[in-house]
Amino acid sequence: MSGIADVARLAGVSKSTASRALSGAGYVSEATRVRVAEAAAELGYVPSTNAQSLSTGRTQNVGVVMPYINRWFFAEVLEGIQTALLDRGLDLTLYDAKPGSESRRRIFESFLARKRFDGLIAVGLEPEQRELDLMLALDKPVVSVIGNEGRTSVVTLDDHHTALRATEHLIALGHHRIAFLGAGALTRWPHVETGRVLGYEQAMRDAGLSDQIRHVTSELTQPAGYAAAVDLLSDVRTRPTGLVAACDEVAIGAIIAARRLGIQVPAALSVIGIDDHEFAEMFALTTLRQVPREQGVTAVELLMRQIEDPDAAPEAVKVTPRLIVRNTTGPVDSAASAVVADGGIAPST
Amino acid sequence: MSGIADVARLAGVSKSTASRALSGAGYVSEATRVRVAEAAAELGYVPSTNAQSLSTGRTQNVGVVMPYINRWFFAEVLEGIQTALLDRGLDLTLYDAKPGSESRRRIFESFLARKRFDGLIAVGLEPEQRELDLMLALDKPVVSVIGNEGRTSVVTLDDHHTALRATEHLIALGHHRIAFLGAGALTRWPHVETGRVLGYEQAMRDAGLSDQIRHVTSELTQPAGYAAAVDLLSDVRTRPTGLVAACDEVAIGAIIAARRLGIQVPAALSVIGIDDHEFAEMFALTTLRQVPREQGVTAVELLMRQIEDPDAAPEAVKVTPRLIVRNTTGPVDSAASAVVADGGIAPST
Repeated sequence: MSGIADVARLAGVSKSTASRALSGAGYVSEATRVRVAEAAAELGYVPSTNAQSLSTGRTQNVGVVMPYINRWFFAEVLEGIQTALLDRGLDLTLYDAKPGSESRRRIFESFLARKRFDGLIAVGLEPEQRELDLMLALDKPVVSVIGNEGRTSVVTLDDHHTALRATEHLIALGHHRIAFLGAGALTRWPHVETGRVLGYEQAMRDAGLSDQIRHVTSELTQPAGYAAAVDLLSDVRTRPTGLVAACDEVAIGAIIAARRLGIQVPAALSVIGIDDHEFAEMFALTTLRQVPREQGVTAVELLMRQIEDPDAAPEAVKVTPRLIVRNTTGPVDSAASAVVADGGIAPST
Repeated sequence: MSGIADVARLAGVSKSTASRALSGAGYVSEATRVRVAEAAAELGYVPSTNAQSLSTGRTQNVGVVMPYINRWFFAEVLEGIQTALLDRGLDLTLYDAKPGSESRRRIFESFLARKRFDGLIAVGLEPEQRELDLMLALDKPVVSVIGNEGRTSVVTLDDHHTALRATEHLIALGHHRIAFLGAGALTRWPHVETGRVLGYEQAMRDAGLSDQIRHVTSELTQPAGYAAAVDLLSDVRTRPTGLVAACDEVAIGAIIAARRLGIQVPAALSVIGIDDHEFAEMFALTTLRQVPREQGVTAVELLMRQIEDPDAAPEAVKVTPRLIVRNTTGPVDSAASAVVADGGIAPST
């Protein structure tokens, strides 16, 4: 049976480098990591995790706590985290902590207390104060994706800047009656809501459109965006010509609602989203692109630094998005706009 | 500090029952499990997993291998597995094994070989023969969701029956020109493809419609269904009046394509899906409902039985779906059908 010495010889590195490369503990270059992993695979060498854990005091495992798995943002972040951990030879233990659920209580009160991980990544968790205290009391590194700024290392989209740019895009196209769709119901992600709403408001104020500021409540899902948009768009007297949606799923819901109501997009209504969700292209949606998968990778990098140096100060990484212009935004169509003034409904074709 | 004896006393059960309830090893009723968990939480008792592992030889951990996380079916199954494992006090280690990826190779060749789990659940994996051999060589219980019948325990939708019923629904509404959308490209899930295609064909033959059998190739995603449907529906001379989609995502893509082409659903085109995907209701989609979350729970139950009794024969659970009739299927509209004969295009509204 091959040992670490054989792996080191085949990879052309020292035993300690081979060990670091396989354990994920300590820095080695990506090229070396790959070479050692190849050598280990070729020789069929599998490090004994028990022996490894004894020598390093580590579990070679990272815990990931998130409130949803089956949603685009969360699943993408999770895939990014998984890839980055596999690259380092680390396992991923998943904790699905639905808000308000009994299993969430048990995760925080008993599963995490087992400390079967070298560190934790909390994705979009917005924990209660008590939950965050419990996580930090474990005395293991914690990195957050969204939220918990100051108390943990964090990776997050610059929400304020993102919504500001989305709104400015519509203003530049000549829109004045611009509503923000997806406010208010967002109690689960107060950071996200606050940042995006304030970014929208600032862009409106900067353009002298303070009196046009209008928030429409919606949960951040496609069906909720659909329902909210049906209400909003049905009243022709107050219908906006531009919508800044809090995320692409809400934007897509609004586009489907507009189609049902016979409102042409973008001739009579421009819609811009935030995310570049996997369905954005199919709906030709103009949006601000973030790449959650990369945020997952960054979270792992921040966590590794904390594991290497537990005394390091928490770091914060703010991500800025890129504007992707497709076909759901365009100049205000004076004819289509006039229809609103007449109290009529724009024709469907 | 509280011990297991205190927990047992508070819960009103024996020490060995309390231990079984907390370890997930051995049968206890759901009511007892909850009572013991409550008692443990109240006393702040956390079982030492090392001591537990030494006494039982178990890791209190289950590995889950799946090719995608960010897709409805997979994410739903994963949530079901997670819930069922949390109920039993077991951790979940996730392995994201994208087809053809380098990380997939490493998962099979090195991560799984660590055996840091009491058993494995393979979801929609359709492993290569070599991969399946590697999994079985670990000498740990393996349960599959989709595929691997005969070699592992398995939970799976009855694909043949499902597509048969979907097709019969359209036939009962008077449709003859019925195409199957989502064949051929499905090399990743040959069991699913084969079962559904054969079910469709059988229903067509049983109704004397063998000469109308028509397969349209599409990957099983919404954008792929959209693209395939645009091609299929653009030719008015050959356009079908009914579509059996291999899954809801393909069906929704087809509905969006029909809208773009100005084809009324269901007046000029009936579409039926399989899944009852989270978006099915928003698109008023008629479909055959499966509940992947329940399949995840069932997979855990099968795995627990294998862990308890490693010599037990593999079990197979076939799930039958329920027909949910919404608004994308209806009787053949003779006027709308006639349009096809005239070579025209049905109006949009």
